Amino acid sequence: MYEDLLAILEDTERVSVNETVLEHHSGGTDYLERKKPDIVVFPKTEQEVVEIVKYASSKKIPIIPFGAGSSIEGHLMPVFGGISMDFTLMNEVTSVYPDDFVVKVQPGVTRMQLNKHLKKYGLFFPIDPGADATVGGMAATNASGTNAVKFGTMKHNVLGLQVVMADGSLISTGGETIKSSAGYNLTELLIGSEGTLGIFTEITLKLTGIPEATVVAKAAFETVEEAGKAAELVLQSGVGIGKMELVDAATIQAVNEFKGTDFKETPTLFLEYNGTAEATKQGITFIKELMEDSGSTHFEFENDSIKRAQLWEARHQAALAIVGRKPNRKLVSTDVCVPISQLALSIAYTRKLLEEYEMDGAILGHVGDGNFHAVFGLNTEDEEEMARFHALNEKVVTFALEHRGTCTGEHGIGVGKMKFLKEERATSLKMMKLIKRSLDPENILNPGKIFEMEEVTIE
Amino acid sequence: MYEDLLAILEDTERVSVNETVLEHHSGGTDYLERKKPDIVVFPKTEQEVVEIVKYASSKKIPIIPFGAGSSIEGHLMPVFGGISMDFTLMNEVTSVYPDDFVVKVQPGVTRMQLNKHLKKYGLFFPIDPGADATVGGMAATNASGTNAVKFGTMKHNVLGLQVVMADGSLISTGGETIKSSAGYNLTELLIGSEGTLGIFTEITLKLTGIPEATVVAKAAFETVEEAGKAAELVLQSGVGIGKMELVDAATIQAVNEFKGTDFKETPTLFLEYNGTAEATKQGITFIKELMEDSGSTHFEFENDSIKRAQLWEARHQAALAIVGRKPNRKLVSTDVCVPISQLALSIAYTRKLLEEYEMDGAILGHVGDGNFHAVFGLNTEDEEEMARFHALNEKVVTFALEHRGTCTGEHGIGVGKMKFLKEERATSLKMMKLIKRSLDPENILNPGKIFEMEEVTIE
Ligand SMILES: Cc1cc2nc3c(=O)[nH]c(=O)nc-3n(C[C@H](O)[C@H](O)[C@H](O)COP(=O)(O)OP(=O)(O)OC[C@H]3O[C@@H](n4cnc5c(N)ncnc54)[C@H](O)[C@@H]3O)c2cc1C
Ligand SMILES: Cc1cc2nc3c(=O)[nH]c(=O)nc-3n(C[C@H](O)[C@H](O)[C@H](O)COP(=O)(O)OP(=O)(O)OC[C@H]3O[C@@H](n4cnc5c(N)ncnc54)[C@H](O)[C@@H]3O)c2cc1C
Repeated sequence: MYEDLLAILEDTERVSVNETVLEHHSGGTDYLERKKPDIVVFPKTEQEVVEIVKYASSKKIPIIPFGAGSSIEGHLMPVFGGISMDFTLMNEVTSVYPDDFVVKVQPGVTRMQLNKHLKKYGLFFPIDPGADATVGGMAATNASGTNAVKFGTMKHNVLGLQVVMADGSLISTGGETIKSSAGYNLTELLIGSEGTLGIFTEITLKLTGIPEATVVAKAAFETVEEAGKAAELVLQSGVGIGKMELVDAATIQAVNEFKGTDFKETPTLFLEYNGTAEATKQGITFIKELMEDSGSTHFEFENDSIKRAQLWEARHQAALAIVGRKPNRKLVSTDVCVPISQLALSIAYTRKLLEEYEMDGAILGHVGDGNFHAVFGLNTEDEEEMARFHALNEKVVTFALEHRGTCTGEHGIGVGKMKFLKEERATSLKMMKLIKRSLDPENILNPGKIFEMEEVTIE
Repeated sequence: MYEDLLAILEDTERVSVNETVLEHHSGGTDYLERKKPDIVVFPKTEQEVVEIVKYASSKKIPIIPFGAGSSIEGHLMPVFGGISMDFTLMNEVTSVYPDDFVVKVQPGVTRMQLNKHLKKYGLFFPIDPGADATVGGMAATNASGTNAVKFGTMKHNVLGLQVVMADGSLISTGGETIKSSAGYNLTELLIGSEGTLGIFTEITLKLTGIPEATVVAKAAFETVEEAGKAAELVLQSGVGIGKMELVDAATIQAVNEFKGTDFKETPTLFLEYNGTAEATKQGITFIKELMEDSGSTHFEFENDSIKRAQLWEARHQAALAIVGRKPNRKLVSTDVCVPISQLALSIAYTRKLLEEYEMDGAILGHVGDGNFHAVFGLNTEDEEEMARFHALNEKVVTFALEHRGTCTGEHGIGVGKMKFLKEERATSLKMMKLIKRSLDPENILNPGKIFEMEEVTIE
């Protein structure tokens, strides 16, 4: 295999069986067992990707596309060995069409690199997962972040893809227009497919103008329920919130302990409003009134960019505080999403579970979307601790499914959530498998993820 | 077939071979030849749909789902005969979760019916095609309208589906949460599939709060290019426009002739801003400044709902004016979409074509999306006139494809645009066909639409 791949890439630096390199590609930022791929390749061009896939296809060798490695459910585990295809060297912003709010990037471009590049045009790409992920990885996991309440997730902001299919054919889906009804929505199908249906070699993104003004606010509540209700009111009002995050009291307590701060230890909504300078002024006044009407005991806001960061510090530091408090801890996180009305309930339930299982965790909610995380810093070698996490996670997921929710709001399935997907998508897994089999009959594209392939029929 | 279907539905009123009924189901609101189905059924329940599909599947009889019949590219033509499945009787709003901004509807609910139902909750569903289409039909065509610049298209606002697959199995995709990364995005794949991949029996929609205030405006320009440039600026500013439509001078002239009005016959942008009362005031002031900076020669705005309708009259009457001027005319429309920067150019080119081909048409642009229509009232029996339309349409599409655009922004492919899809999706048609074959191996779901099935392989 080494010789064959070297013949394609003609560069010993870009075909590697070095132990450190293999180790680096043996998983993501996750709690799962690590398993080395047989080899790692670093393509530089689309044509190279095509040739590698054609080769792998002819030999039925698995290929695992690899972005920044920040996925957290075992998406990158080479379950059946094979080739890890690292996109680090395909990291160019290919073309920017500022007047069209469109950019084309190679898959290895990271979101921070992209936004730095776009700044001069007064534009930005709004999807903001916590890590500095690659656009390819973000597309493959349908990532999102704090901006989702205003801008949606990856599937709402990717206009088109260049894709290498399992047989090495290169196709393009979507395009550069904001809308199209030209045939099946292949782009959306491929977004979130976790490398199992095709490999992205170029991604066309929809951009947004950097707003003239941004103001952030913080509203304290006595109970998580009141904070949740206030968030609902914001959504109902149509004021058009930019961000809306919920942090619970115990999490703020953890931040205070870790950072020596003295933030009020009470359920807190973190809000952002952005737009024109005037609209922003009015928006925040409106939000202040809404918060006060909803029983907020304390409300603060800031315009200035440094003060804005300070105001949100308890939000920004929450995960770090939890993971950083003890040495050698890995971030492990739950990720359910429920209808908005079930959020306060679900968060309160999760906090109770944390106490019951004696787990030290932060609770962070993308409350505008109904998505929240219980974030832990765990010693993944400690079987007893991991067993408690798994038991807790299962309860959190079960509660979400019983409350019309989903087992993953943004992190995806990978290997870690396959058993929950089986439950959640009991009826539609059949359709997924039919599609997978039709597009990757030999099961070489990131096999062993999302679901296990097995016989599936339709008459 | 009649007896078999009657045995399932047990109601002679709901299984019909009546000539008038067959005639009504022999196509949509389109310019294409009409062809009668063999039979029309009117299911009332999901279970009936399942049984009819199982029957059709066992006999390999085509099924054509039928909503309001407002599609305009031959989507409903029973190319190979078969069963037209009319959803008129499945028109219930199944459940509303106002706190979650979620509603579940049967496929036959129309958008106006739905919004009437939702009013008491202070909520609305923002997708607004010109016709009073059914939610099932809108989902199957990925419909959109004037609200798309703010709210996107159907695929951005459908959260989940109940779907009967080609073999009669009932599956559910998506759910009731705003976000999910749980497996493949089947919902999005099915949206826009024009009845060829599955039949929707229930649709879960994401709702929006009715904004506190709405203001509409009208800005006149000397040239289409200036109006287009002004629209770009609005998008860049991040002001968050509600609607933004462009109408050209000749179209306003047609309205004036038809309605006896005296609107200024010049390229005009129609704008809407909505939100809180205060934000709206600020928003419109900001937009006014932008328009004046962009060379607008005249700017007006209105808050009051009756005056708002008057201000937009030239926009609302445009299609009607063109179709209504001569008796027995059918609405026929082009539907390309281009990147925003190419819009003014494309509209000016299209107007020139209208003159060249001596076609009397209105030009309406959803300018925030780059989507525009040249709308005609044609005598579809007049072969010479239709030939001119086809020649013109082909040039409009070719121009769009040469300018990074798509042959259909919102109307879809049906039968009418199959040849353009072949050109536009030259590489990805293969993936579409593989998916179609995997989900509908006998090709019974609305066959003969979007593309012709033929042998397609992947190794
Ligand atoms: C601290 C931290 C915070 C996080 N916060 C968030 C958050 O707020 N929201 C969120 O959504 N996620 C979050 N995540 C998870 C993670 O960042 C996202 O899933 C991210 O999108 C993964 O991108 P990546 O470049 O790291 O991809 P990788 O982890 O390298 O790969 C992820 C998946 O994408 C596939 N893939 C990668 N490149 C391609 C390609 N070119 N073609 C096809 N498939 C490809 C891989 O095979 C794999 O299945 C967080 C993770 C961490 C560690
Ligand atoms: C005056 C006028 C203005 C228009 N303006 C717009 C516009 O602004 N934007 C826009 O997008 N479109 C517009 N259209 C086109 C049309 O209204 C849309 O395509 C609409 O979505 C069709 O909905 P319908 O209920 O009429 O579906 P139908 O025409 O009955 O069917 C359309 C397609 O959907 C399939 N289908 C219907 N129900 C189901 C179901 N339950 N399950 C699976 N498949 C199903 C059918 O098989 C068919 O392929 C306009 C049409 C007219 C006549």
